[in-house]
Amino acid sequence: MAIKTLINGKETDQISFLDRGLQYGDGLFETIAVEEGELLCWDDHFYRLQQGCERLNILSPDQNILKAETSQLVDSVDCGIIKIIVTRGQGHRGYSTAGTTEPTRIVSLFPWPEYSNENSTSGINVRVCDYRYAQNPVLAGIKHLNRLEQILARSEWDDDSIAEGIVLDQMNNVIEGTMSNLFYVTNKSLNTPDLSYSGVEGIIRNKIIEIAPSIDIDINIKKTSLEELKNADEIFMCNSIIGLWPVKAINEIAYEQGEIAVKIKQALKEKKFISKLC
Amino acid sequence: MAIKTLINGKETDQISFLDRGLQYGDGLFETIAVEEGELLCWDDHFYRLQQGCERLNILSPDQNILKAETSQLVDSVDCGIIKIIVTRGQGHRGYSTAGTTEPTRIVSLFPWPEYSNENSTSGINVRVCDYRYAQNPVLAGIKHLNRLEQILARSEWDDDSIAEGIVLDQMNNVIEGTMSNLFYVTNKSLNTPDLSYSGVEGIIRNKIIEIAPSIDIDINIKKTSLEELKNADEIFMCNSIIGLWPVKAINEIAYEQGEIAVKIKQALKEKKFISKLC
Repeated sequence: MAIKTLINGKETDQISFLDRGLQYGDGLFETIAVEEGELLCWDDHFYRLQQGCERLNILSPDQNILKAETSQLVDSVDCGIIKIIVTRGQGHRGYSTAGTTEPTRIVSLFPWPEYSNENSTSGINVRVCDYRYAQNPVLAGIKHLNRLEQILARSEWDDDSIAEGIVLDQMNNVIEGTMSNLFYVTNKSLNTPDLSYSGVEGIIRNKIIEIAPSIDIDINIKKTSLEELKNADEIFMCNSIIGLWPVKAINEIAYEQGEIAVKIKQALKEKKFISKLC
Repeated sequence: MAIKTLINGKETDQISFLDRGLQYGDGLFETIAVEEGELLCWDDHFYRLQQGCERLNILSPDQNILKAETSQLVDSVDCGIIKIIVTRGQGHRGYSTAGTTEPTRIVSLFPWPEYSNENSTSGINVRVCDYRYAQNPVLAGIKHLNRLEQILARSEWDDDSIAEGIVLDQMNNVIEGTMSNLFYVTNKSLNTPDLSYSGVEGIIRNKIIEIAPSIDIDINIKKTSLEELKNADEIFMCNSIIGLWPVKAINEIAYEQGEIAVKIKQALKEKKFISKLC
């Protein structure tokens, strides 16, 4: 599994069960693509981690320390994944954060995952999940450790021909995938669901929102119904590791791989926001 | 902190950071009062744990093994707390539960907490939290490890004179405390909020619902507004460790300690559902 792990700077994979990360999911994480010894979109990942720490009132790790630790792991690594977990550390029994110790910092190198090349080139089949995400404006956007919702949605299928599930919220707004964000094209405009109440603001999602206008693509962040999504001309999913996967079918409805996905992906690669392996 | 801990039967407090309990909060827990070497309401705690495992599709631990491990820890202990955590164990990176190992079983003995006696005898001051619980019917009721919501609500105050916070959901229904369930009396009837969409179905809550009719107290499980709660004649909070704490004030509104709380508490003690120390 993990190739090498540093917990608070020390090489080990063991942690006290008293850590609030385990007791309550009291922490945050980041998953970062590594290419030729470099962490892609490092500033963005660190910024989101910082934002998450602020939201949960956890002391954010020092950027220099974290950078030094990741460098130690990725030096001379051609491709891989760095996962960073920051928890509130240990404390007394109970939810109160009074008397908690220093935050725990886990930095870990994983091998690059073996996704089928076809996911990138020919696109993926997705299902619409039955599970509905709860609306929670305080926790929306950040990448915290409370991930039972994603696990429940992902557990709905074990058919390998389905690569991802699309999840709606309890008001039937389309939100995102179980592990990725979602974009769709209508009338040559690119759209992505609003994540004010549910979902994770993915780094690649933010990069796409940022670069779209510069390559002459209109971008809208909006409330999205399943009907609207199904009627789209193109659909694609993205995250820091998969890069961009076009959707070729939602349940039985087929989609063409479109030019906007191709243009966006090219721009993401040129700017080194996603791995050359994507 | 913990006096003694068994992880999968072995005395240690160390666990792999790859455990899905830490990675995603993918598990459940129980907190059980110990009195004279006995676990109070054991059957109920085990049943709720089983229900939670079923809901999350985690293999429930064998009751005999769990009983043997807790017995090993509580033998000759006069009073204390047993905390049981069950996680899905380790798996591949990602939310899919495919290829996960055996569940992890953590059984731990903690000292009895030092709550002020006055909480039980004179009652407590509570605040109404600003944080609102999300509605999530699939996760409601069970005691899973995704507890950021409780942590956020509990982090709103650090004034020791406030013992608990009352939390509403996003539809402004009163749900429960940050660590306890809530009961209130109107027109001599006892009421407790409906937990179909948020909250934890506490063992003592269920015991109170079960025993109330037998001591001639009407009991209703119902949607509750803050207005309704504030206008109640008596209010009390409960859980397996605190037993029953009457509420003497919500913010500035004072309440009398009532006879129904006294009657209920007496019945809980007689039946050994709560500790004699409560």
